[in-house]
Amino acid sequence: MQKQLSLDRYPLAHWIQALQPSALQDLLAADNANMISFALGLPSEEFFPVGAFQRATAECLAADPTVLQYGTTTRRLKQHIVRIMHMRGVQCREEQIFLTAGAQQGLSVLSHLLLQFGGQIVTESLTYTGIMRVVAPLEPTMVTVPTSKEEGIDVNALEYRLRSGLRPAFIYLVADGHNPLGVCISREKRQYLADLVQRYQVPLIEDDPYGFLSFETALPPVRAFNERWVFYVGSLSKILSPALRIGWIIAPEELISKLSAVKEAMDLDIATFAQHAATWFLDHEDLAAHLRGLQQGYRRRRDLTEAALKQHIPAEVSWCKPGSGMYFWLELPSCIDTGILLKRAVMEERVAFTPGHAFCADHARPVSNCLRVCFSHCPLERIEEGLGRLGRVIHRAGAESLFYQCA
Amino acid sequence: MQKQLSLDRYPLAHWIQALQPSALQDLLAADNANMISFALGLPSEEFFPVGAFQRATAECLAADPTVLQYGTTTRRLKQHIVRIMHMRGVQCREEQIFLTAGAQQGLSVLSHLLLQFGGQIVTESLTYTGIMRVVAPLEPTMVTVPTSKEEGIDVNALEYRLRSGLRPAFIYLVADGHNPLGVCISREKRQYLADLVQRYQVPLIEDDPYGFLSFETALPPVRAFNERWVFYVGSLSKILSPALRIGWIIAPEELISKLSAVKEAMDLDIATFAQHAATWFLDHEDLAAHLRGLQQGYRRRRDLTEAALKQHIPAEVSWCKPGSGMYFWLELPSCIDTGILLKRAVMEERVAFTPGHAFCADHARPVSNCLRVCFSHCPLERIEEGLGRLGRVIHRAGAESLFYQCA
Repeated sequence: MQKQLSLDRYPLAHWIQALQPSALQDLLAADNANMISFALGLPSEEFFPVGAFQRATAECLAADPTVLQYGTTTRRLKQHIVRIMHMRGVQCREEQIFLTAGAQQGLSVLSHLLLQFGGQIVTESLTYTGIMRVVAPLEPTMVTVPTSKEEGIDVNALEYRLRSGLRPAFIYLVADGHNPLGVCISREKRQYLADLVQRYQVPLIEDDPYGFLSFETALPPVRAFNERWVFYVGSLSKILSPALRIGWIIAPEELISKLSAVKEAMDLDIATFAQHAATWFLDHEDLAAHLRGLQQGYRRRRDLTEAALKQHIPAEVSWCKPGSGMYFWLELPSCIDTGILLKRAVMEERVAFTPGHAFCADHARPVSNCLRVCFSHCPLERIEEGLGRLGRVIHRAGAESLFYQCA
Repeated sequence: MQKQLSLDRYPLAHWIQALQPSALQDLLAADNANMISFALGLPSEEFFPVGAFQRATAECLAADPTVLQYGTTTRRLKQHIVRIMHMRGVQCREEQIFLTAGAQQGLSVLSHLLLQFGGQIVTESLTYTGIMRVVAPLEPTMVTVPTSKEEGIDVNALEYRLRSGLRPAFIYLVADGHNPLGVCISREKRQYLADLVQRYQVPLIEDDPYGFLSFETALPPVRAFNERWVFYVGSLSKILSPALRIGWIIAPEELISKLSAVKEAMDLDIATFAQHAATWFLDHEDLAAHLRGLQQGYRRRRDLTEAALKQHIPAEVSWCKPGSGMYFWLELPSCIDTGILLKRAVMEERVAFTPGHAFCADHARPVSNCLRVCFSHCPLERIEEGLGRLGRVIHRAGAESLFYQCA
């Protein structure tokens, strides 16, 4: 009894009280061997370089036990990142790189740098939910611009808002392998965005977790077109391992010490053992060859998924073939609610996905008929079977008209 | 030219603009082999269990490559922490433990949970500077209560403030091996604090980095006397390795999911490779024996430091023998300014310490005649030589009356 009442006793910060636990987490907690899940955006474990990383940890400890001590973030890792960014089409210098505990912390640090309490930010109407979590403590106003699985962010709508006087703390964008839409925006749009943020002097946070997972020739990120107003966020999570928590920001050099002050408040901003081990890995392994293997592996998954979607999913459902990343975005007939569909999919067919509303930043534009299929983590040989199951449940849903919008 | 103007271009969050880079960092950047430093609060590398940790990393990767994947924080590590806390005199359950990236993140997560933007917190007038960094983004009012190297926090002053109606978001306290004072508060005071926070329903954040480094019989932390209003923050940084970034909070069970929501915003709140490796270490190594070795090693350093202080430091300087932790707090004659003394110590004698003002949370009570000597990191065989140098520079400073307060 006392336990249930007791949350009221603690005077918690306002924004905490609004936080709801995710229903998805509950569903996935029920995961088991019979379930085929396209829900969580996890990289495939088959590409983790376990042996090489074992050598890296053992050898960096043997060479220098002070890798376990407090210490400033390593210069050598920053030099590797300069090289990695060069492969990505971005010219930058060591002095512009700031290391973070994964991309999520990169977003958090930048939000705290740029956003006042109660300020304003711009996202696409469908966006990575992590950015909403990150800014929640600062209780901002969210302004959204339209986006689509075909073309991505509507830059004309964005320009209209900026011309009308909107000056957000920042604009948040994923240009490649968009989560959840899968879209990569065109070169022209990248250039246009770079010009817009320059003209209106508004920071753009470019989150690029999937930039190294391109299936065709990759376009350079928006950062390649503007180094003053584009803050780039990168990560080793999708290309090496998420559990290392290694990410980086590329920012104007004069802001790096400010970023360090923000991160110091969060977790002291010191070099981690994982950073030392990753540095050793990058010193001794062929990253370019590793990335080629990743791209081939994920392309194969993407192609298998596309073939299975064509074969099993009803013709009323539309999607686009992603050029990068880990996601297909499916638009179903408007009478189908994918929140309800998920429950049936899990119960009746043991298959899971993420309903569209999970990514919705603009509740005036609902996407309750959409869903995201992540093709990166489901065992390769179960992709077709899983999408067969999904096809059956969508068929039945349409036929039975059991969903509230059809009622 | 353009570069120097450009910080003004970015509309940064207010609290960032007030942040000054630390002068101490500049001084220490000039560190070299001739310098003997008692400045930074680093643990001694001689106690890092390098070989055992090498085995732990290799074996946990071999046993389960998914230690590199996204995953929830491990239950087994929480079970180890229950056991570790039991050794510390605290009864708690797995469900009350929340894992963090070091104690600093623990403080940050708790501050975001409990503190409103612009709210009020209580610290001692001399306190760990990290807490001030952590709360800075929330721009709180800092209320201080007196403290001393002999007895620690003045609980009567605290009670007076609470009785007068003060209801801060939390009180911040280090009960053992206080940083910078070195003091451990009495058992009576712990009980009294536990009663006070219960009576006035005010959360107490008890930061306990040095609780496992007791040189005499350790007293249980305040958390042992109150599990509802005391939020305990622990860490492996001082007992295993700082670079692992492993810390924990013990909080009422019903708040754990809220803490997870806060940490999710900061860095996703997933298990790190270092957590998996530390779990393996704790599964296979004798932590109690390791801790006994640490305590003996640090006690020897404390005793050597005390002997050298007695021999070399002028009689006008007072200090207390710390029962735990890594610090002596020295009070010099009031005409000596330790900020100026540090510059001379570094230039003339190649010895460094931390001036008292670095820890000052109450500028109405200046401590410009005090300094902190950290005895944990300087090579053991150089402690006496280093304090000999410090003694000489203090002697000369007194004799020459070169300091502004004497002028």
